[in-house]
This record gives sequence, C-alpha cells and structure tokens, in this order.
Amino acid sequence: MYEKEKQLLYEAHLTLEKYGLVAYTSGNVSLRIDDKVLIKPSGVPYSSLKPSDMVLVDLGGKILDGNMKPSVDTATHLYLYRNIEWAKSIIHTHSTFATVFAVREKPLPVLCTAHADVFGEEIPITEYAPVGSEAIGKAVLKVMGKSGTVLLRKHGVIVVGTSIEDALKKAIFLEEVAKMSYFALAKQQVTPLDIDEINKLHQQYHTKYGQ
Amino acid sequence: MYEKEKQLLYEAHLTLEKYGLVAYTSGNVSLRIDDKVLIKPSGVPYSSLKPSDMVLVDLGGKILDGNMKPSVDTATHLYLYRNIEWAKSIIHTHSTFATVFAVREKPLPVLCTAHADVFGEEIPITEYAPVGSEAIGKAVLKVMGKSGTVLLRKHGVIVVGTSIEDALKKAIFLEEVAKMSYFALAKQQVTPLDIDEINKLHQQYHTKYGQ
Amino acid sequence: MYEKEKQLLYEAHLTLEKYGLVAYTSGNVSLRIDDKVLIKPSGVPYSSLKPSDMVLVDLGGKILDGNMKPSVDTATHLYLYRNIEWAKSIIHTHSTFATVFAVREKPLPVLCTAHADVFGEEIPITEYAPVGSEAIGKAVLKVMGKSGTVLLRKHGVIVVGTSIEDALKKAIFLEEVAKMSYFALAKQQVTPLDIDEINKLHQQYHTKYGQ
Amino acid sequence: MYEKEKQLLYEAHLTLEKYGLVAYTSGNVSLRIDDKVLIKPSGVPYSSLKPSDMVLVDLGGKILDGNMKPSVDTATHLYLYRNIEWAKSIIHTHSTFATVFAVREKPLPVLCTAHADVFGEEIPITEYAPVGSEAIGKAVLKVMGKSGTVLLRKHGVIVVGTSIEDALKKAIFLEEVAKMSYFALAKQQVTPLDIDEINKLHQQYHTKYGQ
Repeated sequence: MYEKEKQLLYEAHLTLEKYGLVAYTSGNVSLRIDDKVLIKPSGVPYSSLKPSDMVLVDLGGKILDGNMKPSVDTATHLYLYRNIEWAKSIIHTHSTFATVFAVREKPLPVLCTAHADVFGEEIPITEYAPVGSEAIGKAVLKVMGKSGTVLLRKHGVIVVGTSIEDALKKAIFLEEVAKMSYFALAKQQVTPLDIDEINKLHQQYHTKYGQ
Repeated sequence: MYEKEKQLLYEAHLTLEKYGLVAYTSGNVSLRIDDKVLIKPSGVPYSSLKPSDMVLVDLGGKILDGNMKPSVDTATHLYLYRNIEWAKSIIHTHSTFATVFAVREKPLPVLCTAHADVFGEEIPITEYAPVGSEAIGKAVLKVMGKSGTVLLRKHGVIVVGTSIEDALKKAIFLEEVAKMSYFALAKQQVTPLDIDEINKLHQQYHTKYGQ
Repeated sequence: MYEKEKQLLYEAHLTLEKYGLVAYTSGNVSLRIDDKVLIKPSGVPYSSLKPSDMVLVDLGGKILDGNMKPSVDTATHLYLYRNIEWAKSIIHTHSTFATVFAVREKPLPVLCTAHADVFGEEIPITEYAPVGSEAIGKAVLKVMGKSGTVLLRKHGVIVVGTSIEDALKKAIFLEEVAKMSYFALAKQQVTPLDIDEINKLHQQYHTKYGQ
Repeated sequence: MYEKEKQLLYEAHLTLEKYGLVAYTSGNVSLRIDDKVLIKPSGVPYSSLKPSDMVLVDLGGKILDGNMKPSVDTATHLYLYRNIEWAKSIIHTHSTFATVFAVREKPLPVLCTAHADVFGEEIPITEYAPVGSEAIGKAVLKVMGKSGTVLLRKHGVIVVGTSIEDALKKAIFLEEVAKMSYFALAKQQVTPLDIDEINKLHQQYHTKYGQ
C-alpha cells in the first residue's frame, strides 16, 4: 500500500541527511495522501531506515498501516494538516544555524536575494511550546506567514510545503540562509533587503523560476 | 570469536568517522561482553581498520584475543566498566565543538529541547587528568550525571551507553548540540531552558520516544 | 547535438555540489560554444539533473535546443558573453562565505598567497541589481577586474572563466579564501598582502603554474 | 618504475581531499625514495589525477621520470629534504583554520591533549617568504621544532614526516586542532596546557601509542 509514496518519503529523509540537516535519528518528514498521512517511525537511525518502515496514520492519529510507532512529533504534523489545507508535506529538523536563531529567540531577517526569492519574508519564531502535543502546531499557526516556514523557540524548525519537493527545498535553503546570515550578522549590523524588493523578488521567483 | 560483536564495533567506528567526530586515528569505541571488553586497536587509521583488528581484553586489561595493542585509553574504559554496572559501551572522541567547551573549561548548558530530550542535564566537565591511566576514569565518575556524558577538561569527551547504539547516539547528538550552542552563545547571553522543562522533556523522551 | 559539451557542463554542476557551493537547485553554470550558450535548466534539483537537460540558447536568448526553460539568470550570462570576448564559461553561486562578504557589502581583501595567485586582486562588489535581467550583468561589468570574479551585493557571486575548468577553479578557490578570510578577519584587524607582492604572485602563478 | 610508491602518493592526495584539507588543485605531497623524490604534478585537479602523473625528480630538481611538470613548490620540498635527514614525506596545504592562524600571523598554541600528544609544542610560524623558490624552505628551517610542522606566514602549512603516514597524520590533526583552537580562542582568553604536561604527553604518545 502506497509503496511509491513510502519510497518518496524515505528518499526525502536521506536527502535531509545528505545535506546535514538531521543526524542519526533526529528530524522527520511526513506526506499527506488524501485524508491520510505517512510519517517517519520514532527513533530509527537513518542508516537502518527502510521505505517499509514509514507509518500510515489518519488525521486523528490512528495507525492504519505499519509495524512501528510513528514519530513523537506526529500530533504536531497532524494538527498542521488539519488546519492548513494546502499542506501536503511537513518537515521538522534541528538544523544547526536555523536552531541557533531559534535558541537566540530571534526571527531570521531577509539579508539576501535567495532568502527573498524562496521565502519572501523574515522567518518568524514561535512562543515556546512543549514537544509531542498539539501545542507546537498551535504555536506555529499563530506566527506562520506565506513562507510556511517557522522557527520553534529553543527547539528547531517546521517547514510546511505544497509538495515533498517544496518542503525539502525550503528546509535546505533555510539552513543555507541561516548559516550565511549568522556569519554576516556576527561581525556587525547588516542592512536587510528593502521590503518592496523582497516582495518583488518573491513574486518573480514564484512565477518565473523552475519548469 | 565474537565475530558479530567485532563487526558491530567496527561499524560504530565508521559511523563516528562518517559524522566527522573522529579523524584518521583519533577516538575509540569499546563494547562490554559479559566480563570482557572489545576495543579499538591503538593508532590504526580508520581507512585500514578491519573488524578482526578489535582487541578483546578482560576487565583487568589482560589481552584475551587479538594481534594488536589495544587503545592507549583502555585503562580509562575498563575503570568505567568496573564502576558503572549499566555501562555496555563507551565512546571517546575529540569532536570539535564539544572539545571547544572542554578547552574553555565550561560545562555545556541546556539551550534546546534536543539537549534536554537526550541528555536531561548540562554536560559536566571533569578536572584535568592525564591520558592513559585510571585518572581519567576517576575524574569522570566524580562528575558524571544521568546522561553518562562528560567533557574531559582540555581533552575531549567520554560517553557511556547502555548499548553501542545508545553511546553512538549520545556522541553524535553531543557534537550537534555543542556546535549549535557554541554559535548561539557566541553572540550574546542566551537563556537556558527551565530546569522543570528539562526534566519533563527528558522523562518524556526516555519513555515515549523510539520503538 | 553538443553531447560532449552537455556532459562537461553537467559534470561542472556536480563539482559545484560536491564542494558545497550550491544546494538543491541553487547556482548555475554556462558554457559558450561559438555564438551559442549551453546553460542549466531553471529549478531542477541536482539529484535529478541530466546532461540532456542542458538548454542551448543563442546570444540573444532564443532557445535553440532543449525541452526545458533555461535558468532565470540566463539574461545575466548572455549580457556578459556579449560584452566579454574572452568569456567561455560563467558560474553563479551563493556559496556561503563569499555571500557573507556580499551581504556585508564589503570586497574580499587579499590576505593570503593563494588569493594573490589565483585572483591577483581584491574581489570587487557590485552595486545592488535586481535578479533576472541584464542589470546584474551591467553591474558586474562596472567593477570587474582581471580576476573575472565579482561579488553581487546582497546576492552571491559571478565568476567569468576562459574555460569551464578556469571558472570552476575560481568558484572553488573563491569560497576557500572567503571562508579563511572571514575567520581571520573576525578576530582582529589583519594586514593584507602588499600590492607589489600580489602582482608578483599573480604573474608568476599565471605563467609557471599548471601543465 | 616506483609503481607502488606512486600509488601510495596518489592515495595520500585523495586522503587530503577527503578530509577537506585541499581543494581542486591546491596542496601537494612528496615522498623521498633514497636520493630521489616523487611529487604531485602542477595544477592537476584531484578528480583527474592518476598515480602515473606523479613526477620523479632528483634532489637538485632534475626530472627523472614523468610526462608532467612537477609542483611549483618542488624547490621548497627539495630544500627541506636536502637539509632534514629524517624527512621522508612532505605535505603542503592551505587547510582553512591552520591558514587562519598563518594569516593572523600567530603560532598555534597547545590548548588540548591531542595537540600535545601529536605535536608536543606550539606550531611555529615562519617569516613571510615568496612562493616557488628555496626561500620558503629556508624560512621553515629557521623556526621548525620537533613536530616538523610549521605555519607559513600569509600562506599555509608545511608538514615534514618520517613517512607518508606520519605526514598525513600531522596534516590532518593540525587542521583539527587549529579549528578547535580557533573557536576556543574566539570567545575569550583560554589557558594553554602546562609545558611539563605537554612534554610528558608527547613523550608518552611517541612511545606507547600505536602498533
């Protein structure tokens, strides 16, 4: 059942590991299929993860298929799917420099064109919310903007995508711009991009870029 | 003899190298099997290491099997196995950012949920102790808390695990949180997580996470 | 048509990814062949890119061969080819530490011999110019020196090469020297190399180095 | 002729690349065989380097075997072989954090036990000397201590080894300790290891460590 989707979700986890955004067992990706959600099993190291390990749950969290316990972050993912119609895939990581901003309790400002292109806004930060319940989902919804990308205070990152590729792209670019921005800001005050330029770049990127 | 365990121990060394926690010949992993200990041979580069190179010693350090000299840190490992009943695997590395804290002579504070989840406490630091004797083992025991993870002053890291997977996970996550914490702290004072929240997260992680 | 060149251009993209100068879909390389230009298709992740995806355009931007949309930066590349006779290959990246200098709105000074050898000058920075038009090409021409390497303000990097190997080499060395220079400059004022020494090293490197 | 040695030297170059100490064409390794020296050809990218590309020269620099031009740093290597009897292999890199110290014109102090073990002294720095002549060799000899490892002012690193493995190990550990030391020192004054402890660790490491 859903073998193609399980393979796709498995490969998305390997992509996160390849880019160094997750380590050993950390992080997780989910994929909405109609009114069901496929998600990573809890606590399985990437080196032993298999496509068939992916767990299928309904939007209320009931396990429909799979021999493993789903991610402890499943309730967060499901809350977001129930409340964001366009959400097709969600990624959670503790990628290093995005988490540095989350731990410093600061949004990530728009310092370069790539940030403006992909996200179109500074990345907001949630209030602190405990792991493993709907609290994180609620905190995300309160601050989430058009980028679908949010820093979790003292915790990590949530990325909501219109597809697994869209979520992957935002998770990867978030860490890229967070790392660059950290080192740019470390030395001195840096002037962010102008808001009109941000909007223009984002609009252009989302209409002209790609196939 | 113990071919499966030698293979497992060999693979653990490669995992440390893959994550960049060790380099060329540095670091070592051991595995307790009843009243014996398998450990890395001394000074063998990872690129030429073989499962059959692993050395079997008794808890007093007598070589029982193997053609190579065991790690110069063997006395440290054995002291810890003799004094910590639950210790099944021990990892020693000089992973970069954990060692930065060790060299700065500072414990690693709990700044994010992943740290609280896995370790449940700030990572303590030992007094300075010379390499290659029981002195490091004794210094570790003096400060070791529930995480089984300790910074060695001006030296590196010791991780004690309930299994080889547990030790690997803590060694990998330690460097992840040390790197993130270093850069978060580099810019300004950052507020650690609340102690009650740390305890709650750790408790939850160790009862609900994983298969 | 141009199968060998498409393969070469494809491999150049993989080289950029291997060195971590691009991520997922970012960055692009082009190659001039007489009065035509081969360039990366827009928005295709590196993991699914194929040699046959490369798009052939004329110097005015008309698509001559290929089933995909060319890079959104095509107009920039073409402007530079039309105005720089010796340009045979152009690379655009957002490599992290080069972009840190671009975002801090600072040229990259010559701090070490490798910088002097390969580039022979501090890397200049353009005025800010919007993505996707000839404006970036014009801004590059205004400041470009003998290195053919330019920081794009609040954006990234353009490298113009006499061959695909020359462009790759400059893109890779730029990030190497930018990273080293960033950390050297982060701690204190550092004295740049003397201008006569820079000129001597550059001259020597471009007459004696290589096969 | 010398096929085994050419293979060994080729693999040493790949090891440097694997650890990120060299990039594209930078850096070089040589190996003394009696009164001859095998060395990397000039300007050949690592991805296309072959064992048979290695160039054999005599101690005066005369090419004895090989179709390629030897490294532009050949005169430096030969000067050191002529003047250091125990030198069997020499490595030159611009590895990032070692070069940061070289550009900041500071020796690398002994902050951790791994540094004391392998090097037994702070890594000295030469006066500035131009590339491609004996001047660098002379500057190295003036400051070189028992570690055989020297920072080249505003340039990079020279490592002299008793074997290719010894040189590789020192080149790899130098960058490890330079990176860790940079970040440890970036935040505040850090107390170096005591000189007696350094001497004791170095002595112990060079008598008890390894097979």
